[in-house]
Amino acid sequence: MGTKYPTTQILLATGDCDVKLKVLYCGICHSDLHFIKNEWGMTRYPFVPGHEIVGVVMEVGSKVQKFKVGDKAGVGGIAGSCQSCDNCSNNLECYCPNLIVIHGSTYHDGSITYGGYSDIMVADEHYVVRIPDKLPLDASAPLLCAGITVYSPFKYFGFDKPGMHVGVVGLGGLGHLAVKFAKAFGVKVTVISTSPSKKKEAIENLGADSFLVSRDPLQMEAAMGTMDGIIDTVSAIHPLLPLINLLKSHGKLVMLGAPEKPLELPVFPLLLGRKTVVGSSGGGMKEMQEMIDFAAEHNITSVH
Amino acid sequence: MGTKYPTTQILLATGDCDVKLKVLYCGICHSDLHFIKNEWGMTRYPFVPGHEIVGVVMEVGSKVQKFKVGDKAGVGGIAGSCQSCDNCSNNLECYCPNLIVIHGSTYHDGSITYGGYSDIMVADEHYVVRIPDKLPLDASAPLLCAGITVYSPFKYFGFDKPGMHVGVVGLGGLGHLAVKFAKAFGVKVTVISTSPSKKKEAIENLGADSFLVSRDPLQMEAAMGTMDGIIDTVSAIHPLLPLINLLKSHGKLVMLGAPEKPLELPVFPLLLGRKTVVGSSGGGMKEMQEMIDFAAEHNITSVH
Repeated sequence: MGTKYPTTQILLATGDCDVKLKVLYCGICHSDLHFIKNEWGMTRYPFVPGHEIVGVVMEVGSKVQKFKVGDKAGVGGIAGSCQSCDNCSNNLECYCPNLIVIHGSTYHDGSITYGGYSDIMVADEHYVVRIPDKLPLDASAPLLCAGITVYSPFKYFGFDKPGMHVGVVGLGGLGHLAVKFAKAFGVKVTVISTSPSKKKEAIENLGADSFLVSRDPLQMEAAMGTMDGIIDTVSAIHPLLPLINLLKSHGKLVMLGAPEKPLELPVFPLLLGRKTVVGSSGGGMKEMQEMIDFAAEHNITSVH
Repeated sequence: MGTKYPTTQILLATGDCDVKLKVLYCGICHSDLHFIKNEWGMTRYPFVPGHEIVGVVMEVGSKVQKFKVGDKAGVGGIAGSCQSCDNCSNNLECYCPNLIVIHGSTYHDGSITYGGYSDIMVADEHYVVRIPDKLPLDASAPLLCAGITVYSPFKYFGFDKPGMHVGVVGLGGLGHLAVKFAKAFGVKVTVISTSPSKKKEAIENLGADSFLVSRDPLQMEAAMGTMDGIIDTVSAIHPLLPLINLLKSHGKLVMLGAPEKPLELPVFPLLLGRKTVVGSSGGGMKEMQEMIDFAAEHNITSVH
């Protein structure tokens, strides 16, 4: 990455509304690996990954209101947005068409953004969240991406309501947090995995109510039509029909992973039950703070 | 179909809540053709198609409340449902898991249901709708299937609200009614078709606000991100990505056709805008009556 310290350019952008953090921990998200290798064809080098960033405030701009020196704070995937479109107006900055990602995007001043694998991070306070004292900093870093990515669909699609039955496909970084949030919401959660070996972790460690081996047709058939929603965290190519079949009518399959190739979508089963396949990515800053506060209240952190 | 008059078995099932209609008109739906040829592998012969049925009441059972002899009435695709599941309780009989279709299903008494290509139709009054005098019987028959199929998603997904911009893919039996309903709701409607020759019909005859040739990449690109919802009436294999790209973030692509093979679903574009692909089929009996009354009020009938 050259001899120049990568955060220098960000530091030059420090403004009245900016917060400077001493970075203490930064998560590794699967997308960091995609970006490093330019697997999505959009990486701009030199590239500094990392978008699950927690640390302590070192310095604040003159107009900063939310933070003072010494506060614990976190930064996720968003460095900036237009703050004027419909999505920004509705606290959905993550869907702003002019979203500035925390790494590899062009910032307002024309500089390139660098991520959290660094000692220092400077960001506009609007895109920085407070980390409650109750949360351990190391295990809460992944909440800034994985956490909000699973929390947001629970709230938006109403899966957080008592009586709901939610499936979680895959038990990795996203999936295990989805199970923890589901249990904190008080809803029934079933983990769906290709690996029978994950059953113990799902049920005993994470408190899932049940477990389905997706390659076992009998198990899958017995659970048909029982779920209000499914959080699908798998980014590999995988069949959707068995998941669609698990949904009740009007149920929703929420895709969080981004497979490299299109998936096969059988339409008839969607029609018969007015079923939905929908994508979701992250959440806005208001929801991010709400998620962090909820996680602190319910002792939800990432397993590491 | 044998020598036995096909409606005989239905007549035997006439009960206190049944209405007997003299069938005057019956639409031809594309699914009738699928059923006749057993293209969906579920046809039971002898088979009598027809599920867009209008006529005049000849006789009513002792407990019938909605109808009297001489009333104009219609029957769609539903002959019966369980009346106890969540869907039936929510006036969504069309999604009842024990739905009894008007043709080729097993009725409560064990007989096989026969459709409307017949002189007489007997049905439980719950599944019969009133046809207002204002509606011509011949041109309103297709409302009982095509009409409700396009009306229901407008209402359920909120596409009927002022300010909405809705795309309609395909300008056949379903599509042309979707345009008429959209204009009656007062929303902006764009027809999307592979055939440039449909432009005149769409704009001049049906009142669509604009027209896109789906095979013209420049036209499609210029319209990217402009639609709140799309009603896709095409049952042939077709690409979804160009349609997903037309949606605003949080937009919904509603599939009404049932292609024989799975379609290719690109997931990344769904994620980036929290976009939805959802199926829809028909509507419940309460909504069916509402649709018929709305059509009468706004002079909406099928072109024939």
